[in-house]
Amino acid sequence: MAQHRIGKQTIVFPGKPGILSSAAVVGPKEGRGPLADGFDLVVNDALFNQESYEQAEHAIFREACEKCLKKGNFSNTDVQAMLGGDLLNQIMAASLSARELSIPFLGLYGACSTIAESLILGAILVDGGYAAPVLCAAGSHFCTAERQYRYPLEYGNQRTPAAQWTVTGTGACLLGASSNPWARITHATAGRVVDMGIKDANNMGAAMAPAAADTLIAHFRDTGRTPQDYDQIISGDLGRIGSEILTELMKKNDYLLTQDNYMDCGLKIFDPRDDVHAGGSGCGCSATTLSAYILPKIRKREWKRVLFMATGALLSTTTSQQGETIPGVAHALVLEGEM
Amino acid sequence: MAQHRIGKQTIVFPGKPGILSSAAVVGPKEGRGPLADGFDLVVNDALFNQESYEQAEHAIFREACEKCLKKGNFSNTDVQAMLGGDLLNQIMAASLSARELSIPFLGLYGACSTIAESLILGAILVDGGYAAPVLCAAGSHFCTAERQYRYPLEYGNQRTPAAQWTVTGTGACLLGASSNPWARITHATAGRVVDMGIKDANNMGAAMAPAAADTLIAHFRDTGRTPQDYDQIISGDLGRIGSEILTELMKKNDYLLTQDNYMDCGLKIFDPRDDVHAGGSGCGCSATTLSAYILPKIRKREWKRVLFMATGALLSTTTSQQGETIPGVAHALVLEGEM
Repeated sequence: MAQHRIGKQTIVFPGKPGILSSAAVVGPKEGRGPLADGFDLVVNDALFNQESYEQAEHAIFREACEKCLKKGNFSNTDVQAMLGGDLLNQIMAASLSARELSIPFLGLYGACSTIAESLILGAILVDGGYAAPVLCAAGSHFCTAERQYRYPLEYGNQRTPAAQWTVTGTGACLLGASSNPWARITHATAGRVVDMGIKDANNMGAAMAPAAADTLIAHFRDTGRTPQDYDQIISGDLGRIGSEILTELMKKNDYLLTQDNYMDCGLKIFDPRDDVHAGGSGCGCSATTLSAYILPKIRKREWKRVLFMATGALLSTTTSQQGETIPGVAHALVLEGEM
Repeated sequence: MAQHRIGKQTIVFPGKPGILSSAAVVGPKEGRGPLADGFDLVVNDALFNQESYEQAEHAIFREACEKCLKKGNFSNTDVQAMLGGDLLNQIMAASLSARELSIPFLGLYGACSTIAESLILGAILVDGGYAAPVLCAAGSHFCTAERQYRYPLEYGNQRTPAAQWTVTGTGACLLGASSNPWARITHATAGRVVDMGIKDANNMGAAMAPAAADTLIAHFRDTGRTPQDYDQIISGDLGRIGSEILTELMKKNDYLLTQDNYMDCGLKIFDPRDDVHAGGSGCGCSATTLSAYILPKIRKREWKRVLFMATGALLSTTTSQQGETIPGVAHALVLEGEM
């Protein structure tokens, strides 16, 4: 069997699987942010005509998947596999959406790194000829995440300065072989789980930054590339604190991330006047920013090659209550436009 | 790109990825059952020297992975990817084990179908030349599952006759290219999420059986095979009620499952004198039975070709409380011994 790998951790895709379409459906706060024009639907309120926030999260997830299929001119019966997940216990928004879409479903959980995980596995399915097209999706909802991980909104608890605001929204991408895709996936670096001993569940940027550095360094080491080889290096939801730590950690390893070549989706998605403290977070943060901002930049040829890395904090209320530290994980992939 | 598929849902692996080693670590109840001789470690008590059942689940998960690597004469640094999950919220047993193993980690959640999901994706990684060897693992723990999904054990609640007993244990397999593997994976059929409207969270066999039938029928339709082409057709944890429903559903579609050609791991793992009501369940049920019973049968050439299908019920306490029905999912793969 031919080995489609370079270095220790990086996969090379000889077939360069294409992104055939993408869609993002978000909540009202995201919809009044700077990426407003890029979203396919902004729901009027966080309940989205449902009886619970969890049902709204499920409806938003399904809606994003359906919009993605429609934009690519595919029906659900054309799609050979669906890969995705969310932050709800037992990834129920994705699972219930898969029920209604009736596509063979492989559920994923990588916390907020899930969209990158799904794109990497989706690219492998397409590149290897095991399935195409493949639907990749990840989502989150502020109100369900607060209730599940912290406190129900009704408590009105005060957020710490390091806290991040979970994005309400789902981003979906359809991958396949195409001569004229929106963008192509050329490489992927799947990350290791890294734990530097952070215990504060309200400071997830700090918990995730070491994993992000580990994956970025592995990617540069494996490919022989440097930050200069990318028009943009993009992290998922490190937020203000995590981004600063990542920049610092990379600098110590002689890789320079600057305001020009590096951005974090969590610092891009919300209007700064909507004070969300340390930034946006959640599976939906990088997934919707990918569809609403990153892929359009590539389509318009403003960026020719970007390194997209979604980051996840691996914790549950139980592990936090039992005194466990919070490890992070980060998965990166290279997106290229048509030359 | 060559298409390695037949029919609508089935993948064919031209490279026939091999199972290089496997291991199963289980709790005391499983250890006094009929598969006792096949387990690599039976822990003396469900706490496994830890301070909580969740920590025990994590320790058992890691132990199974380490034993699997050791049996295959691999160290963690040799392994290029780890795919796995468990039933804990946010799959924390798998995630924390991945931290200690330091292998690039792709977290999965397919409820009790997780071991089949991980073997299918692992086989794709190996067959396509994207990673090898790959570690696939899934686990569960009776005491954490009771606390998380039902009641803490201390309540002493009464179990209904349809209830199944979550297996305490983790099964792990190492996949790779080898001229002399324990068994080979030749085909895989990933399942759709199917919901027939079951709402009783204590009758998961009934919730999963329609998905199992959907996947089996898709597999037979895609491959042109019949049950007669397999020495054994194996379901994960349908239990007594789910197995009967599956047999009935298959009969209606002219596929005959009998006591001779069909078994369910949930009906095999416990001693009948340990009355577990409708049978065993949990990610660990099919994963440990695979390692302790199915793979040994293939190695001893008692079975030449089996269809292994793990089944999952997709629910959370929140979806149940909100009145949602319980969909199921089932993923199948073909295991062959050396001819």
